[in-house]
Amino acid sequence: MPPAHPSFIGDVPTPALIVDAAALGRNIARMAAFFAEGPCRLRPHVKAHKTPEIARRQLAGGSCVGLTCATVGEAEQVADFADDILIANELVGPGKCERAASLALRLRTRTGAEAPLTVAVDSDAGLQRLANAAGIGGVTIGVLIDVNVGQERCGVAPGTEALALARRAGETSGVRLRGVMGYEGHVQPIRARDERALRAEQAMMQLVATADLLRQYGLPCDVVSSGGTGTYDISGRFPGITEIQAGSYALMDTDYGEVGVPFEQAFWVLGTIVSCPAPERCVADCGHKSATKDHALPAVRGIPGARVTAFNDEHAVIALPAGAQVTIGDRVRLIPSHTDPTINLHDVFYVVDGDRVIDVWPIAARGYRHL
Amino acid sequence: MPPAHPSFIGDVPTPALIVDAAALGRNIARMAAFFAEGPCRLRPHVKAHKTPEIARRQLAGGSCVGLTCATVGEAEQVADFADDILIANELVGPGKCERAASLALRLRTRTGAEAPLTVAVDSDAGLQRLANAAGIGGVTIGVLIDVNVGQERCGVAPGTEALALARRAGETSGVRLRGVMGYEGHVQPIRARDERALRAEQAMMQLVATADLLRQYGLPCDVVSSGGTGTYDISGRFPGITEIQAGSYALMDTDYGEVGVPFEQAFWVLGTIVSCPAPERCVADCGHKSATKDHALPAVRGIPGARVTAFNDEHAVIALPAGAQVTIGDRVRLIPSHTDPTINLHDVFYVVDGDRVIDVWPIAARGYRHL
Repeated sequence: MPPAHPSFIGDVPTPALIVDAAALGRNIARMAAFFAEGPCRLRPHVKAHKTPEIARRQLAGGSCVGLTCATVGEAEQVADFADDILIANELVGPGKCERAASLALRLRTRTGAEAPLTVAVDSDAGLQRLANAAGIGGVTIGVLIDVNVGQERCGVAPGTEALALARRAGETSGVRLRGVMGYEGHVQPIRARDERALRAEQAMMQLVATADLLRQYGLPCDVVSSGGTGTYDISGRFPGITEIQAGSYALMDTDYGEVGVPFEQAFWVLGTIVSCPAPERCVADCGHKSATKDHALPAVRGIPGARVTAFNDEHAVIALPAGAQVTIGDRVRLIPSHTDPTINLHDVFYVVDGDRVIDVWPIAARGYRHL
Repeated sequence: MPPAHPSFIGDVPTPALIVDAAALGRNIARMAAFFAEGPCRLRPHVKAHKTPEIARRQLAGGSCVGLTCATVGEAEQVADFADDILIANELVGPGKCERAASLALRLRTRTGAEAPLTVAVDSDAGLQRLANAAGIGGVTIGVLIDVNVGQERCGVAPGTEALALARRAGETSGVRLRGVMGYEGHVQPIRARDERALRAEQAMMQLVATADLLRQYGLPCDVVSSGGTGTYDISGRFPGITEIQAGSYALMDTDYGEVGVPFEQAFWVLGTIVSCPAPERCVADCGHKSATKDHALPAVRGIPGARVTAFNDEHAVIALPAGAQVTIGDRVRLIPSHTDPTINLHDVFYVVDGDRVIDVWPIAARGYRHL
């Protein structure tokens, strides 16, 4: 039987999301090698790609304690093969904690571990909702106290405020306190390595000091979770940090390319030139419904010197250098500036080895499937 | 049997896309009333909502000559009930023209019309691809010459360049020349009504003059298609324009709200407050994977004086006015700045009548389904 997808990249309808399987494998191997030495380990973030087949490869690559997810929907998509899942986010709202409890039961049944699902909490209200759902579901859900280490988003203040919530978590049935997390998201995009290191260390000092405080009060704190692709080698070597939640490293984008981390660009948006109305301009069929522009316009590959000048819903308007030979039907690659929301726009990855399409991977956790 | 969705908006999991059925109906009725007088008619654009149930209501609302689509995928989703479809875009790349030919056959079989599908062309290469596919498929596909009326995206130059392509289209078997189109996309967002009118009229003069030129040379030109929500009442009253491709009017966004067109905001993104870390700040679970920020950050409804200050992948960080009473679990509405790409992020609309959820509509044409 022929494969249920085009055999060659030239036959892939556009716009389409393409992943280079070999480059992805090298990125996964490079990150695994960094964390092979320990004591800090890797907990790859599923939110970046929402693709179970990529998460499987990250776990198989080694050095992982489990996976990180941003939503219960992502966790549901990896629960068949991940033995330890952290939802690094507050779960509030209709059905969220109940779905987490169902997921915890499913994981416990398969793995035998008592609390293989862990969820971040930063409030009594959130803690109680989670504990109630766990109680009704007859399961134990692990919790990490989410600490604000400078991003000014979610999280309790480091120190005594975190300690107070941790003590209440320690006394609440249905949940099991496992430690703390704090995401230094404000540090990830800093281009200058020295400043990035300084700011990351400031954040990690607050997180590790909070973990120490919990331990001084006799509270369990085996997990001190942090980090991202921009700080994996800073926060990941900071004494006391036990795991890093990096995600973008596997596929990369122009933004992290400018940060200068040592990973390859492993995916792109493939487009087709549909209009060549002037020598200095052509138009491709891959607009910002196929690649977000929240960080920057995407970069153009395949036409030297070309750049996107306007990025509409369905069109990329591309400025061409003098003498560029572009004709209708030519293909173009756009390198996205931001991995996560770009992948969230697509339903599948076309997996390539050179010009051959070797597989199609569903982006199973994209969107919001509640029904 | 209970409905396959929550009965009340309070039970809808978040983030979720909500549409107010009554407000949608009023917008559709208001636009239909404007075009009831003729001679210009309405051809609602499916790209804005990608939702067959909304397209059905637009056609049922009257004053329509058919529907506009941006992609062949959108056209496939409305082909069961739309009798005349314009794909107002160049179709190039693997499978596109072949799918258009299949669709033309499907429409012809159902409606009996010889060329119920029309596609924009702006090049000989595009024209030939379309004609070849039509020939192989044994169908006739209508074509409009896409004219650049100032947007500087796709389209041939007005006047003799458009005439030359139209003459070749008139001599090409498999296609039937129906007229011209030109989208004044650069005019839509202009806030000042006088300037918007001036610029739209400049664009329409070029389009109508091109249509007249075709007719002077004996070429058919029954269709002169243009316009959008920002110019429907300018281009739609310009002598010689036969149809307007407006889309956003049905649902609206903050951007068109600022333009000042007389339609109601009929949809929003529903979120849940998941974190209240400080009196002046709360965090909702609806980030820019649920509402794009390409035009502007979304506006907050439901908390007077509140505004989004940071809009991350999964989080809206909301600045609160002094004294705001917000607690974890509260709901918040985000009004998107841009209709089309926001809706493209979601799989379903929850349809509400006040606090009741009365239906769930699939956003059937979202994403890129090629397999």
